[in-house]
Amino acid sequence: MTNPTIGILGGGQLGRMLALAGVPLGFRFRFFDPAADACAQDVGALTVGSWMDCDALGRFARECDAITFEFENVPTTSLDAVEAIVEVRPPRAALATLSDRVHEKQFFQQCGLMVQPFAAVSSAADLAIAVATVGTPGVLKTRSLGYDGKGQRVIRDARLAEAAWSSLGEVPCIYEAFVPFDREVSIVAVRTKVEGSVQFDAYPLGENVHREGILHTTIVPAHVPASLAAAAREHARVVADTLDYIGVFTIEFFVADGTLIANEMAPRVHNSGHWTIDGAVTSQFENHIRAIRGLPLGSCAPLHAWVAMLNIVGRIPPASSALGDREWKLHLYGKSARAGRKTGHITLHAATESALIAALARAECISRSPNAVHS
Amino acid sequence: MTNPTIGILGGGQLGRMLALAGVPLGFRFRFFDPAADACAQDVGALTVGSWMDCDALGRFARECDAITFEFENVPTTSLDAVEAIVEVRPPRAALATLSDRVHEKQFFQQCGLMVQPFAAVSSAADLAIAVATVGTPGVLKTRSLGYDGKGQRVIRDARLAEAAWSSLGEVPCIYEAFVPFDREVSIVAVRTKVEGSVQFDAYPLGENVHREGILHTTIVPAHVPASLAAAAREHARVVADTLDYIGVFTIEFFVADGTLIANEMAPRVHNSGHWTIDGAVTSQFENHIRAIRGLPLGSCAPLHAWVAMLNIVGRIPPASSALGDREWKLHLYGKSARAGRKTGHITLHAATESALIAALARAECISRSPNAVHS
Repeated sequence: MTNPTIGILGGGQLGRMLALAGVPLGFRFRFFDPAADACAQDVGALTVGSWMDCDALGRFARECDAITFEFENVPTTSLDAVEAIVEVRPPRAALATLSDRVHEKQFFQQCGLMVQPFAAVSSAADLAIAVATVGTPGVLKTRSLGYDGKGQRVIRDARLAEAAWSSLGEVPCIYEAFVPFDREVSIVAVRTKVEGSVQFDAYPLGENVHREGILHTTIVPAHVPASLAAAAREHARVVADTLDYIGVFTIEFFVADGTLIANEMAPRVHNSGHWTIDGAVTSQFENHIRAIRGLPLGSCAPLHAWVAMLNIVGRIPPASSALGDREWKLHLYGKSARAGRKTGHITLHAATESALIAALARAECISRSPNAVHS
Repeated sequence: MTNPTIGILGGGQLGRMLALAGVPLGFRFRFFDPAADACAQDVGALTVGSWMDCDALGRFARECDAITFEFENVPTTSLDAVEAIVEVRPPRAALATLSDRVHEKQFFQQCGLMVQPFAAVSSAADLAIAVATVGTPGVLKTRSLGYDGKGQRVIRDARLAEAAWSSLGEVPCIYEAFVPFDREVSIVAVRTKVEGSVQFDAYPLGENVHREGILHTTIVPAHVPASLAAAAREHARVVADTLDYIGVFTIEFFVADGTLIANEMAPRVHNSGHWTIDGAVTSQFENHIRAIRGLPLGSCAPLHAWVAMLNIVGRIPPASSALGDREWKLHLYGKSARAGRKTGHITLHAATESALIAALARAECISRSPNAVHS
């Protein structure tokens, strides 16, 4: 018996953690990435190639029994080349809808989710109307290819709008009203079909704090009424059903005046779900692999009353410090440190919220300690 | 920064699970194994070579920053070749003591552990005296290289002793009194030194059931009084301190008349500790990697009131069945099915013992279902 091979488009930490979760289910992994030092190669074969090289992608696909991705901005023609050979999941239609921020917002509205006021911008005239209609402050974002705060500008003064658009390269954009939110939360959910029958589940809502556009911490459960957590789950279910989605996905919401405002959806495993590796019966990574292979989903139940995930960004703390508390779990991605680059995360758990917050404060000090050669 | 590489002697499921646990700590893995299809190669580079090939082992060692093993019967001269280049942990002295069942028993006695009556056998005359002194029934075992019930014969009738010894090849043996035990239990423990300071911890005692000499199930916690569980932990501590041990190890005990009788010690991660992957804050595999690298140990606390591990032997059930309960965790080793071969395990958990026993009964049915092509 040869074990089935799952190919992953992208060989970063998400691919690495997908493989670590999928190997115990009996799968092998291969990765496609433009970077020769892509960190997932520690747990599977890496094919180095350009996203534009359809021949290389085709050869890669022929070595795989199924394909998924950790990077959703693969060019359409490249995905066509892959899909001609082997099934790609999550489904292409979902990717197409979500790859454009304007279409994504319109889709959320069709599904009954609230979104902040927004307008499409493809000319200076559009921009002036958008800023006048939506008001300031607002955020101008490229319609596609943005992540971790890249490809966006806050506009506080209408007179500076054109300069912001110039600095983004005058590409098609979306202008969104700035939401004075109380909290940012995200729901990580999973949907599959097992012998034609739909299975859906979602992890408890997480509360996220960003710093400089990069996720800093996720705390589970989020500080919201149960009714609001239930609403987020129901939104996720409707969105997934509408897309006939297969796999793990995440929807980020703002909570403003007790209401959920949908911000964006990631059609993949997500940083705000990393806590599930140590904090849930089945991790988001394992459930994604189960989902794309049509296997029954595992329980999304949390293992602890309170869980937190802290990203390590731009540096690598000495392992001996990051493992300084017996209850902490360290995840290093095998990447070298670079400003603004996620190099790992720490998962913490506690029986009470106050104990969690105290542990988080200690972990933050450690995660900021200087780079160290691996002990 | 290059991530440190840990070399593992042996590329079976133990090596595979060590790598799955060690990659998130930022390590890379390489394996040395005589079998070209060794299953650990899904998570690291495999060097195929003979245990007698000191040159190949030396070249392998030069590619590693540290060496450990999942197979403790590597020939001494081969380990010498490796250790000339890079540190081997657990320490060689521990291996030497434990690789001979007679020395192992004598060592247990020195450490204050009770053992069953035994005698060394290296001639037909020894055998006759041993059987007369120790009595029947008893078990004749080769002094070294036995595992999973291989290399042993039960002797119920003194007249059949010589035939049993013949069938084992008349190699040096140990003859042990058969212990009419109430239960078999094992303690998985870990010891390291962090900057010169000893750290020791142990997982809750597990209760094991064997079938045909192969571990069938482990249930945690074992059904023993707290005083006995505490005694097992203390025995493990004394044994580890005496050996100046570094890494994870397991001591198997018989419980007879409320007393612990030490049976054997494995100087490595152990099948009866597989439940820790899903059932403890830090798995035995992660703690072994931490220990051999001098990193602080992680918590051995269980995550559930009751946990069970069920081995899958000789077949591979369809993943869709083995994942049939949302709470179960499946671990396949990527090996082909063969009679008597461990191909995976399932971990179950429950809030009560009766719920666990019921789940275990269901899982047993599934683990015995016919081989299936991977779904």
